[in-house]
Amino acid sequence: MKEYTQLIEEMLQKEQWPSAPQNLYEPITYILNQGGKRVRPHLCLMAAELCGGSAMQAIKPALAFEMLHNFTLLHDDIMDKAALRRGMPTVYKKWNTNIAILSGDTLFAKAFEQMLRYEGANKDLLLQLFIRTTIEICEGQQYDLDFEMMEQVSGDTYIEMIRLKTAVMLAACLQAGALVAEADVPTQNLFYQFGIQMGLAFQIQDDYLDVYADADRFGKQLGGDIAENKKTYLSLMALQTAEGKDMEQLKYYFSKVDFDKQEKFLAVKHIYDQYQIGEKAMRLIHHYYNTAMDLMHQMNIPDAQKQTLKQYADLLIGRDF
Amino acid sequence: MKEYTQLIEEMLQKEQWPSAPQNLYEPITYILNQGGKRVRPHLCLMAAELCGGSAMQAIKPALAFEMLHNFTLLHDDIMDKAALRRGMPTVYKKWNTNIAILSGDTLFAKAFEQMLRYEGANKDLLLQLFIRTTIEICEGQQYDLDFEMMEQVSGDTYIEMIRLKTAVMLAACLQAGALVAEADVPTQNLFYQFGIQMGLAFQIQDDYLDVYADADRFGKQLGGDIAENKKTYLSLMALQTAEGKDMEQLKYYFSKVDFDKQEKFLAVKHIYDQYQIGEKAMRLIHHYYNTAMDLMHQMNIPDAQKQTLKQYADLLIGRDF
Repeated sequence: MKEYTQLIEEMLQKEQWPSAPQNLYEPITYILNQGGKRVRPHLCLMAAELCGGSAMQAIKPALAFEMLHNFTLLHDDIMDKAALRRGMPTVYKKWNTNIAILSGDTLFAKAFEQMLRYEGANKDLLLQLFIRTTIEICEGQQYDLDFEMMEQVSGDTYIEMIRLKTAVMLAACLQAGALVAEADVPTQNLFYQFGIQMGLAFQIQDDYLDVYADADRFGKQLGGDIAENKKTYLSLMALQTAEGKDMEQLKYYFSKVDFDKQEKFLAVKHIYDQYQIGEKAMRLIHHYYNTAMDLMHQMNIPDAQKQTLKQYADLLIGRDF
Repeated sequence: MKEYTQLIEEMLQKEQWPSAPQNLYEPITYILNQGGKRVRPHLCLMAAELCGGSAMQAIKPALAFEMLHNFTLLHDDIMDKAALRRGMPTVYKKWNTNIAILSGDTLFAKAFEQMLRYEGANKDLLLQLFIRTTIEICEGQQYDLDFEMMEQVSGDTYIEMIRLKTAVMLAACLQAGALVAEADVPTQNLFYQFGIQMGLAFQIQDDYLDVYADADRFGKQLGGDIAENKKTYLSLMALQTAEGKDMEQLKYYFSKVDFDKQEKFLAVKHIYDQYQIGEKAMRLIHHYYNTAMDLMHQMNIPDAQKQTLKQYADLLIGRDF
């Protein structure tokens, strides 16, 4: 893992960014240098190696996905009015909305350019995968924005939203690695499907941890989603199953944001507990995780490689269940 | 020309846009169906035919450039706070900023997808040209935004801005047509350079017409740029050459927007006239136009084709000088 991190950071640093216009390229290097976990390029490099290729063969697609991911962050932060990202002011706050739009557009274009520089196997398929993924991510973000305006959203619709917004990029990174290494077609697809299942598990776990994490280990305050009335798998399930006074209470608490945060958190969590919402979410996380493992076992790669993939997935999902 | 228009509209209509999410795809079909002159795809189809290819061969790159152009409009209208485009409400006004950002991103991705569908000659070069052009357009828009905050901008800097913001896309469309038709490399480059010169002539003419057009033929009110203190080639030249009281007056009028529009227009135009600003602009338009013609004569295409190219250029620039 450390070798991947080193390779990714080294190659990102090697990227030559023009110095002008400064207001276009400074925000790009600002967000790229903030780090983050680099999950997407990691997945791409790892999949290439697991399929018998080398990390170096996959570095350009890997960096392209990392750039694409950061482009989506630049624009999402405007739409979500997010002031902070990775503990630092977002580009739209530090500069302004116009600069965040335009440096996002440029980073998007640079991601494509990076992908075009790749000269190995399956280039056309990689480009198609890349562009289809981009479009799906936009669709996912649009559904997410739409949901904010809706009173009730079904569980299935929510899952489809997080599939598009989060899971497809993880899936595409894994498939890209398999494409680079010229894995057989069923294995390529299994990597993609594995990524979808892990992505869904990861996102629902994210929803779960906001309420049920061990506060000391979580690293941020619990109940952030609840305080902001964010639609999560848990809140949707609760709004689907709560009855009578509980339902009234939920609707009351989710109707505005100016409550005492701790009081609201405890009240909502109390209702979640009564309806076993945490358990329901955990069952779904298990379901996606187990499906991912089934898919993994069907991959045409050595067993030792499957263990590596499983370890990374467990690490990613911070699995202690 | 009519045949090109028919082909472009027919192929644009054939595009299958998903129905959901509605808030993502409705703005895209809304802006694409508004029409506009379709200058960019026209240039691409025409260049392909002038170089011995067929319009049909070039249709995918042509549509890709039209989509790319409309993506830039979606985002530019947010940045410029433009309420109307082609006489209709802009997407950011009719929907909202978030939807204009996201449908723009999607249209950008769709433009690239359209380009990937092209399966003829020089595909890699076309993709590279496409992405380089996109990045340059973003740079041009950033310079334009930067200029709004600057007191003085030199003529050369302004020309570089309009080269990036406007001319490179016209140039790229022409070169794309030449690439599709497998013109020799010098001719490809001559088409590109021809497009740059025509683009510069076109943009400075646009600046010129805002002040000196025949109001009846112009189709919109004169002095729009002056009313909004927009930096144009004319205003920059005037601010560079005016002296004494004239300079004071110019600075006074360009310091705010709440003047009587007609009074301001006449006062500024009066200063322009004293310093032959209109003539200076016209000389530069001639210079770029003549350079374009020189480049055209060097192209390795039949003379009859050169006549067609000249006619389209004259039509585009509405040339009556």
